[in-house]
Amino acid sequence: MITLKDVAIKAGVSEATASLAMNNKKTVNAETRKKVLEVAAAMGYIPNSIARGLARSKTNTIGLIVTDVQNPYFGGIIGYIDEYLRLEQYNFILSVSNDDLLKESQIIESFIRQRVDGVIIIPAQSPRADFLSFNQLDLNKIPYVFSTTYDEGWESHAVMTDLTKGSYLLTKYLLGLGHRSIMVLVSSNRTVSISKLRLDGCMRAYDEAGLAWDTVNIVECRKNDFNSGYKAVMNELSNGNKPDAIMAINDIMALGAMKALKELNLKIPEDISVAGYDDLIFSSISDISLTTVRQDIAEISHETVQLLLDRIKGKDLIPRTRFVQPELIIRHSTGVRTE
Amino acid sequence: MITLKDVAIKAGVSEATASLAMNNKKTVNAETRKKVLEVAAAMGYIPNSIARGLARSKTNTIGLIVTDVQNPYFGGIIGYIDEYLRLEQYNFILSVSNDDLLKESQIIESFIRQRVDGVIIIPAQSPRADFLSFNQLDLNKIPYVFSTTYDEGWESHAVMTDLTKGSYLLTKYLLGLGHRSIMVLVSSNRTVSISKLRLDGCMRAYDEAGLAWDTVNIVECRKNDFNSGYKAVMNELSNGNKPDAIMAINDIMALGAMKALKELNLKIPEDISVAGYDDLIFSSISDISLTTVRQDIAEISHETVQLLLDRIKGKDLIPRTRFVQPELIIRHSTGVRTE
Repeated sequence: MITLKDVAIKAGVSEATASLAMNNKKTVNAETRKKVLEVAAAMGYIPNSIARGLARSKTNTIGLIVTDVQNPYFGGIIGYIDEYLRLEQYNFILSVSNDDLLKESQIIESFIRQRVDGVIIIPAQSPRADFLSFNQLDLNKIPYVFSTTYDEGWESHAVMTDLTKGSYLLTKYLLGLGHRSIMVLVSSNRTVSISKLRLDGCMRAYDEAGLAWDTVNIVECRKNDFNSGYKAVMNELSNGNKPDAIMAINDIMALGAMKALKELNLKIPEDISVAGYDDLIFSSISDISLTTVRQDIAEISHETVQLLLDRIKGKDLIPRTRFVQPELIIRHSTGVRTE
Repeated sequence: MITLKDVAIKAGVSEATASLAMNNKKTVNAETRKKVLEVAAAMGYIPNSIARGLARSKTNTIGLIVTDVQNPYFGGIIGYIDEYLRLEQYNFILSVSNDDLLKESQIIESFIRQRVDGVIIIPAQSPRADFLSFNQLDLNKIPYVFSTTYDEGWESHAVMTDLTKGSYLLTKYLLGLGHRSIMVLVSSNRTVSISKLRLDGCMRAYDEAGLAWDTVNIVECRKNDFNSGYKAVMNELSNGNKPDAIMAINDIMALGAMKALKELNLKIPEDISVAGYDDLIFSSISDISLTTVRQDIAEISHETVQLLLDRIKGKDLIPRTRFVQPELIIRHSTGVRTE
């Protein structure tokens, strides 16, 4: 590590002079300043931004916590957030919680230590015993915004798709096709917001149609990934549970479900309809193109960044959730059963 | 921001006493220490790890630069690196360069400022005029390792697939099927390592078979993504260039190429064979399952982390590239032409 002291020694000046020169203070003779800057550049010296950040109490860095980097849905979100933050001259640092609450709290603590200007949180989907981490951000006056989903137990600024509406539209469409027994593949715990909000939407469609909710089979999967979708469908169908339609919490799981049905020699949609959620680019090119609910991730990312920057600028808005509208995309994986 | 001074005032002690208490020094009376720690916890005070890091000159944080988060290949790499670093009690911070050299240099500078213990670099794929950023890491004695590819002009530690061998195996297989005119979709510039190394492998297979290289059509694409693969094939085929086979630099582009062929009513592989590179999970479930070269990303990530930690522990190994073996995966997108 090259220190200011190293630069000062090499330039033959005192550390105080070197410091003044590095900060372009006029009290230092122009020639000396030039010399110090040249020596510093040649040695590869980089001023400690944390110290500078503290002095001007701004680091121009945003902390971003995501739950999962292997699902291209989150890859898309990160890409857009990166783009919008850069337009506003902000950097970001990213950490991955893997839906682990302990990991999430460690990340938040490290962001506070690094003096970030704000935090964007995609909250871990595990039931929370407390909200100490979020409280710690508040205590340290570091603004934060939840993105893609919120936490029901902690009121804060959030930007997300109206997940309930999306599931409502999809379920209504499936009921309209005549499907009654629907298998819903949700996250490891049906009470976490990303699952609960979608289930609320299903229920509303059933209620509205005057149909009994007990033909719905909710399957809690280990993770929200391709293999979990595949295994869940393999297990359930091997146990004799054959629904009219399968709705997965995201496209990746729906693609896993489709793989299982293929291996079980079941036709989509003639034997079973399948629907996802997200509208990944892969969903339109899979074997049978996937019916899904599109989430407008560009809009979610843009609103998230704007809201966070508003908060950083001291616009102390009242916490509220901004909902981005979902869109039902009907493709070829759903249809009337032909048996 | 809660400062130590705030804690000291609240606890009714001097700042020096508060500091000693926070650092668990025995010189502070046990009751006072307990009081300070309780007040600090209640206020949400978090000690500045940078200052502490400097004191013990270790932050237990690794900087990770990736080029692209929207390709699930890199999502997989990030996931594994996260897993292996956590096993070793390291955190990481991630930034995205989008193959932009200026952005990459800014990221490296910010990592140096944040006093990371080491850096993992997936280098931006643009021709470099200089290597100042890497040099700055050396000058600051921060160990780094290139991962997934290296930069030909800068000798350093690197872990990557033997890309040349993978392309050699794939080309040899395609030539064996009787294909002669092959279209190769590469990155924006064929001289960057991820393109050049693959092209070297193709060339070796042509040479070995005693075939002329001039039946190969190298197409430089704007980006390495789905849409670039789609557009490149649309353009080339509209201009009358119809090859026997298409090889893309990665699976995402190959999937884009397949979409274009589908729209042009060309059959895969009866009219044109298509092959990718990476073996993403999507490649096996696409319309026609994709022939590809598997990169062992778990192994690449594991070796990268081990090598970096060795360097951090001061094992001053001589820079060298560790090659991980590729595997040719033959599926249904390639075959003998039937026209």
